[in-house]
Amino acid sequence: MKVEIECAGCLLHRGLFQITEATDDCALQFEVTSALFQLFTKEFQPTAVPAYLGTQRDRLIRRMTGNPDPYAKIKQRSNQKALEFFPSVRKLVSNESSPEFRFRKACLCSIVGNIMEFDIPGHTFNYGDIERLIQRAEDDLAIDNIIEIFDTAKEAGRILYLTDNAGEIVFDKLLVRELKRLGAHVTVGVKGGPIINDATVEDAKYIGMDRIADALITTGTDAVGLMPEQCSNEFLSAYDSVDLVLAKGMGHAETLTELNLSLPHALLLRTKCRPVANFLNVEKGKNIAKIML
Amino acid sequence: MKVEIECAGCLLHRGLFQITEATDDCALQFEVTSALFQLFTKEFQPTAVPAYLGTQRDRLIRRMTGNPDPYAKIKQRSNQKALEFFPSVRKLVSNESSPEFRFRKACLCSIVGNIMEFDIPGHTFNYGDIERLIQRAEDDLAIDNIIEIFDTAKEAGRILYLTDNAGEIVFDKLLVRELKRLGAHVTVGVKGGPIINDATVEDAKYIGMDRIADALITTGTDAVGLMPEQCSNEFLSAYDSVDLVLAKGMGHAETLTELNLSLPHALLLRTKCRPVANFLNVEKGKNIAKIML
Repeated sequence: MKVEIECAGCLLHRGLFQITEATDDCALQFEVTSALFQLFTKEFQPTAVPAYLGTQRDRLIRRMTGNPDPYAKIKQRSNQKALEFFPSVRKLVSNESSPEFRFRKACLCSIVGNIMEFDIPGHTFNYGDIERLIQRAEDDLAIDNIIEIFDTAKEAGRILYLTDNAGEIVFDKLLVRELKRLGAHVTVGVKGGPIINDATVEDAKYIGMDRIADALITTGTDAVGLMPEQCSNEFLSAYDSVDLVLAKGMGHAETLTELNLSLPHALLLRTKCRPVANFLNVEKGKNIAKIML
Repeated sequence: MKVEIECAGCLLHRGLFQITEATDDCALQFEVTSALFQLFTKEFQPTAVPAYLGTQRDRLIRRMTGNPDPYAKIKQRSNQKALEFFPSVRKLVSNESSPEFRFRKACLCSIVGNIMEFDIPGHTFNYGDIERLIQRAEDDLAIDNIIEIFDTAKEAGRILYLTDNAGEIVFDKLLVRELKRLGAHVTVGVKGGPIINDATVEDAKYIGMDRIADALITTGTDAVGLMPEQCSNEFLSAYDSVDLVLAKGMGHAETLTELNLSLPHALLLRTKCRPVANFLNVEKGKNIAKIML
């Protein structure tokens, strides 16, 4: 997926947020902002992929400010808050009567978890919204390939589950558990280093994903979404050896659609901005469970 | 007043809005966006004044897109909507029992008119809010020099009234009328050419300001706020010959505070963004009637 004009505003907005989180040095904040403008002057072209630009932006901010993880506090708080909601959300899944219904509910909860993001212009989220959003998750489901994903997962020997944000990853545990119940070996892949509010191995361990997944690996890189050319060989071996990839969030939608996929991928996400919604031909603020075969 | 870091987001946001209003040519939109990034790379420094950057930005957009007035439709609609509300707002002023109270109410209505703006991130406005906002205008008044402004205006032989936005200018008529009732010769100064949604001579005539003011002039330039070095000699003669200047809006707050003022200036505005609110040491979303002697 390529950038739209309004991506420029969001890319800068998230950059500015990050700069002020990363350093209190006002002169440095201006230097980094100017460097961001310079980066976008060159790179903000109609052929650019938003996730690639976001990756370049965040690397520049981390390098210039010397702050290795500007979202550290936000990620920690997201994990903690999501864990508070986890028991009641887990019950919603376990109350379902059949494997199909449990899988469906776990998908919906995992998609609602993807709403947990704080610095996208025009997207607001309060933790108190979670239960209401789960209740209406089915109504908000604009692309519903859950049955196809279920059927593919049932046949899969090995599955790779690519996470998106901290906080959200708590709800991903429910879906990883359902995938395992279908008989698959499930590897969870998190980011190889801090990038925006994406979950890293620290987040995964903090929320107990390592005790649920059969294996926990990282992409080997701090890139948004999936950029195979930057991933570690270990990750690429795992990626190439599975029968199904489940990928969460807009960063994966932006990047997977740039690749020639050689196996089934399922995208689970909330359309939190108009460009991603436009690309998927749905409205903003919708839930997506889309299989790409 | 100088830029804060968050001004970068607003400057770009308003630029992107304007670019998409100015042209449907997607390739050109990207070219102009890249040129904006280049402009800000160089000019977004801690010493920059937001209104100056906005002026440079808008000139670049108009030049590159060939659209002389990207806000034309928005300005027209603002004027029409404000005129619909005008009779009831006028009644609020005329119902007051004394010249002081009428002046006070006219100031408040003129400040509420300044809320009429549509593309500032974090600032929302609906026409339906106008009556409610006037009702609570006194409560929202964080800096109240209205009595001092009244006393200065009473003594003034000649007054210059510098307008801000289209739409808003309709409510300015009420205050211009009150100033005239105090015995002053009132010249209204509008922008010399299209710049964001600022009122031009076309707007002033459309809403009948020329029939109320003793004289209607332009700044002779399309700059945001007041940049004397860019104004026409005719304007500067008028500016130098008055006893009091009333200036509306954040653009005037940003620029007048950069000048060595040689006569009393009154600022009437709503703090629609945090940097201007910070500068005035008040909260965002407050009404300001501040005299600078």
